[in-house]
Amino acid sequence: MTRTLRVELGERSYDVRIAPGAVSDLGEATARLGAVSSGVIISDETVAAHYGRAAGEALRAVGLDAPLLTFPPGEPHKTFATYGELLDAVLQCQPAIDRRSVIIALGGGVTGDLAGFVAATCLRGLRFVQCPTTLLADVDSAVGGKTGVDHAAGKNLIGAFHQPSAVVIDVQTLGTLSDAELRNGLAECVKHAVIRDADLLTFIDHGAKPFFARDVDALSELVARNVAIKAAVVAGDEREYGDRAHLNFGHTVGHAIEVDADYTLAHGSAVALGMLVESELAVGRGLLARDAADRLGDVLERLGLPVRRAGLSAERLGRLMQRDKKARAGKVRFVLPTAIGSVTVVDDVTDDALREALQRIA
Amino acid sequence: MTRTLRVELGERSYDVRIAPGAVSDLGEATARLGAVSSGVIISDETVAAHYGRAAGEALRAVGLDAPLLTFPPGEPHKTFATYGELLDAVLQCQPAIDRRSVIIALGGGVTGDLAGFVAATCLRGLRFVQCPTTLLADVDSAVGGKTGVDHAAGKNLIGAFHQPSAVVIDVQTLGTLSDAELRNGLAECVKHAVIRDADLLTFIDHGAKPFFARDVDALSELVARNVAIKAAVVAGDEREYGDRAHLNFGHTVGHAIEVDADYTLAHGSAVALGMLVESELAVGRGLLARDAADRLGDVLERLGLPVRRAGLSAERLGRLMQRDKKARAGKVRFVLPTAIGSVTVVDDVTDDALREALQRIA
Repeated sequence: MTRTLRVELGERSYDVRIAPGAVSDLGEATARLGAVSSGVIISDETVAAHYGRAAGEALRAVGLDAPLLTFPPGEPHKTFATYGELLDAVLQCQPAIDRRSVIIALGGGVTGDLAGFVAATCLRGLRFVQCPTTLLADVDSAVGGKTGVDHAAGKNLIGAFHQPSAVVIDVQTLGTLSDAELRNGLAECVKHAVIRDADLLTFIDHGAKPFFARDVDALSELVARNVAIKAAVVAGDEREYGDRAHLNFGHTVGHAIEVDADYTLAHGSAVALGMLVESELAVGRGLLARDAADRLGDVLERLGLPVRRAGLSAERLGRLMQRDKKARAGKVRFVLPTAIGSVTVVDDVTDDALREALQRIA
Repeated sequence: MTRTLRVELGERSYDVRIAPGAVSDLGEATARLGAVSSGVIISDETVAAHYGRAAGEALRAVGLDAPLLTFPPGEPHKTFATYGELLDAVLQCQPAIDRRSVIIALGGGVTGDLAGFVAATCLRGLRFVQCPTTLLADVDSAVGGKTGVDHAAGKNLIGAFHQPSAVVIDVQTLGTLSDAELRNGLAECVKHAVIRDADLLTFIDHGAKPFFARDVDALSELVARNVAIKAAVVAGDEREYGDRAHLNFGHTVGHAIEVDADYTLAHGSAVALGMLVESELAVGRGLLARDAADRLGDVLERLGLPVRRAGLSAERLGRLMQRDKKARAGKVRFVLPTAIGSVTVVDDVTDDALREALQRIA
């Protein structure tokens, strides 16, 4: 069964197709964009070993040249240096790329961010197709057009908004994903539930077993429900001037915890902890009922995500958050839940309040 | 006298203000954008020595921090390496930049292209103000949103479309410009005349003396007339899917001549030769009257631009043009004049026709 959702962004609108085995439809999905001269597939070495060949064959089947460019896997390679190397390689492809060439991002969030940024800045903007292969990329990074790389001064500080022209999600690729990687995606699914959809939290809580068994139907529904939320948020505020910031729930504190841990903590784990701390902040201000915060903790725990972390310093996290690119004139903005399914934004959280919230997960 | 023109691009519309001494209004022009937290001035070392201090003072006068970042002057520095160094410096500014910071490009085309690309890709897009200080930048590169850097595989292959939020043109800065640099700009003015405005060609022809005497009134009118043409073309086709390509008149052959000369030829000289060759192509196809092509040559010669170059190989230029990013599936598109003031686009120029056209300037 194929599910198709539309991301409504005027002239930048695009379809998200979710289907088992969709990697082999990549050629048709690319050709359907119209006036395509060639393709370039960008992937990390691990994903390329699994799906690079199938993707290349799918493109050649519709008559498109599609060289495969790879880089070493992992967030530590989401750098300006890797970006420069990929640009060099794309610009040296033979036959040469032109303005009708299409970049295909085959892989997880790092690949999508890197390949999307290459597409955004090659010949002043090439079209690109997102073909995510992790749950995190399926439900989060592949939709919305945020592209870029990390910098010593912070994550994602260099990049561009560049929407894909199509997103092709093959949930069968989740079969080669580790449980730890699956959890990274589940943390973002929980985030979507908390900011927009209480029913989704129940669905996730009940679905844990089939998700980890890589049940294609359960995963397809999970992905479709989450993409629908992400697409609606992005359609309402493409450039994050307003409500798109809701997607940062769990990430303000989560990013700081990630940096504090020198990125030795998985992104999903940091976000889980961040969601818990931010929920505690909400409880502390009387915005959120205690049992809602407790329920969030229970769901995260049943998914195998961490709900405890000792030794976090409010002062240090506070400083790290101030350095985040989302801070405005030094004010850190927090997305706090008011119930499961809705959030509000505040910018007056004190170090004392943060210290107290951190106590609850210590 | 201040002249203000508007570039109509929907939510990306902006004003171009042309006034003697406008560098000292940079602060007000930046503050007028609204919600500005800080500024970063990017300039080459030569321009910084002339105007860096005045620009910084103008920004501080409206309460904005405005560190000045410089790089060595010249097209050889419009590289990915310089871009990376500027990004590093911008991201390490203290106090740290945020999403409400504004980049100010103070200088010629290289500075505008580099600083604009930094703005396009810092925190996924910062606003930027173009403050051009060469005639070429005033009438051409400062308006239109093309940003980027060169690559070993060709000019401007890495970059983005990113419109400035304001353009502030101080024609007094042309007082410190060499005659050779002034000619680079005049070549683009002639181009605008040929593609859109026969009267402008007469104005340029008659105005050569006051232009070279740096007469502020004559230069202001020259700049205003040219910005009006550029703004109208860009407003009609921001991303160059159609008529914006008319601005490439003289540049298809011109770029190839530049590369053939290993960039030892000034851009304006290459464009002048390119316009002549392309006019000869038009005459050869019966599109353009011989006397119109001759008149173009006469005007260019009176401006001190080259109208002769021996030893150009049609085969070699043909190969270089095919590698240009504007080629589509190997077909090179030429913008050919049909009269002074109008052009058409063709993509079936043969090597033989090119050889014959090159003979006329040999």
